[in-house]
Amino acid sequence: MTLAYRSLEWRGSVLRLLDQRWLPDRIEYIDLADERAVADAIREMVVRGAPAIGVSAAYALVLAALRAADGGRFEADGDALLAHLDAAAAHLLQARPTAVNLRWSLQRMMRRARMTHPRTPGAVAADLLDEANRMRDEDVAVNRAIGQQGVALVPDGARIIHHCNTGALGTVDYGTALGIIRTAHERGKSVHVFVDETRPRLQGARLTAWELRQLGVAHTVIVDSAAAHIMRTVGVDLCVVGCDRVAANGDVANKIGTYALAIAARAHGVPFYVAAPTSTIDLETPTGDAVDIEERPASELTQVGDARLMPDDVPIRNPAFDITPAEYITAIVTERGVVWPPFQESLARLMGDN
Amino acid sequence: MTLAYRSLEWRGSVLRLLDQRWLPDRIEYIDLADERAVADAIREMVVRGAPAIGVSAAYALVLAALRAADGGRFEADGDALLAHLDAAAAHLLQARPTAVNLRWSLQRMMRRARMTHPRTPGAVAADLLDEANRMRDEDVAVNRAIGQQGVALVPDGARIIHHCNTGALGTVDYGTALGIIRTAHERGKSVHVFVDETRPRLQGARLTAWELRQLGVAHTVIVDSAAAHIMRTVGVDLCVVGCDRVAANGDVANKIGTYALAIAARAHGVPFYVAAPTSTIDLETPTGDAVDIEERPASELTQVGDARLMPDDVPIRNPAFDITPAEYITAIVTERGVVWPPFQESLARLMGDN
Repeated sequence: MTLAYRSLEWRGSVLRLLDQRWLPDRIEYIDLADERAVADAIREMVVRGAPAIGVSAAYALVLAALRAADGGRFEADGDALLAHLDAAAAHLLQARPTAVNLRWSLQRMMRRARMTHPRTPGAVAADLLDEANRMRDEDVAVNRAIGQQGVALVPDGARIIHHCNTGALGTVDYGTALGIIRTAHERGKSVHVFVDETRPRLQGARLTAWELRQLGVAHTVIVDSAAAHIMRTVGVDLCVVGCDRVAANGDVANKIGTYALAIAARAHGVPFYVAAPTSTIDLETPTGDAVDIEERPASELTQVGDARLMPDDVPIRNPAFDITPAEYITAIVTERGVVWPPFQESLARLMGDN
Repeated sequence: MTLAYRSLEWRGSVLRLLDQRWLPDRIEYIDLADERAVADAIREMVVRGAPAIGVSAAYALVLAALRAADGGRFEADGDALLAHLDAAAAHLLQARPTAVNLRWSLQRMMRRARMTHPRTPGAVAADLLDEANRMRDEDVAVNRAIGQQGVALVPDGARIIHHCNTGALGTVDYGTALGIIRTAHERGKSVHVFVDETRPRLQGARLTAWELRQLGVAHTVIVDSAAAHIMRTVGVDLCVVGCDRVAANGDVANKIGTYALAIAARAHGVPFYVAAPTSTIDLETPTGDAVDIEERPASELTQVGDARLMPDDVPIRNPAFDITPAEYITAIVTERGVVWPPFQESLARLMGDN
């Protein structure tokens, strides 16, 4: 069972994105032909989810190289071409500051560009397209591996709380935390997912519920603040979330509300798992305190799609992410294996095996 | 400084309610001339907040008595009149099951009706109107007393998290938890209120923010799931919430999300205060487990006012309240004093002093 839609797709010379701002009400695609438009789409959350953002940015650099090839001005100047691509990467990097996949992806693409010989726009564009396609395919493979690594953590009959969207829509395909749930379902385990609606943008209610329906996985949407009540009254076997960055000590940056959910899980003795491709593990970030938490526009609270929820002039703080200290995390599920505390050591060992 | 609007008002022979479903977008009043219409208004949350519901139901019984007087059929049969009013009270009681003020108010009104002599519809209606007016005035006095009892718990410069709406709109006037904040502000203390938006109905973002603005109290609206993040990163000095019922052991039933907030407060060493008129303390309810938690329609999540947020057919659970176990509560602020753990003893003592 696969979803009928893809979050992103390379179409010859444009990047096609499924516009997630209107899902599931309207299924609309937008075709982007230059890297600045991709940066805007990332900032405006046409595409969201750390893995999907990372691969979208990779294709944005392909677009930058293609446009450079079109102009002809970089034909004889490989250094200028690299500088041009570096500038494009720097611009893309600013689109969303918290997730590390974006940086990881851009760095990997620029390494590939530096290795290209001869360093002509055409050759670089071809190599970058090859690299972006690899990253696209690797993302799906990584997610499937995370599902296989994590599935043993899901007991048959499990009641699960999931936050935000970590499914096919937040990745190239299959999903990370949702990939674990999906693998359990595919292996015949009975699961029921309590879907945090995930204010302000309602990725849970709009995206995750839509994916789970298509996959045939039983689910119930709740307001975020009801998760603790569900733990106390219904009983929950595990929480599983994705992540935007894992620090060297195991602190996790993820969608706002993750920390509150982890605290509630601890209070009820519920295991709290984080699904993290190794591309989100950043040993250069010592702890969560070093992560830049993106503050997003107030309009995300006051509006959902075309709908106005509250007065526009209400004073608002809208942090898009929070930090969950490592002590609240039971285990981190990566494509290479499940990592347990103490995370400082286990993450270093995992990444050292690279 | 008072608000320009009243949640409820007796106007000669009708109960006028400020329709809180559309605030602050539209300021609309509805005049209700019979008790069944009041029950509907309570169920549909035209009026909400345990104290405001209690007094509205009191006036509903006045309306029931007035209609009985109009008909003439109860003129010579006081027992039939009482049975008629008992039936009206039973119907009203079903409108919202969790808050205890509704029951408290109806019982008090029926006691008064039983004391009336001669037991004619006219005399009973007059007595009930007198009793409802007393309850209306007492509510304001009780709220002001709660503010005075609780103000010492608010340090100057306090950063406060408040959930739902407990202000003038949720009461007859002044407010309970918001009354404490208001008293601190009126006494010249500097306070900043982080206002939980309070999904699903957004009473925080729509009602509390509107009240605080009119009162000149500094405030910032956040999504409910950001409260823990604000505690960790900004620092919070106290949480204060209202309540719909306090059980004999100190367990508190209140708006969904209260429990999650209390767990987060505990994790950060933040005092968690509950403002409770003694009319919400129910020694007949031994613990929170005995409280009927109202499940409200899924449409509360999918719609806000006219705005549609998510597909109508998403499977939803929508518990309107949760139980916060007594162990998470630092103190309960009543009009007669601040009550500290162990609550089983302190609440019994407080209510025994009646």
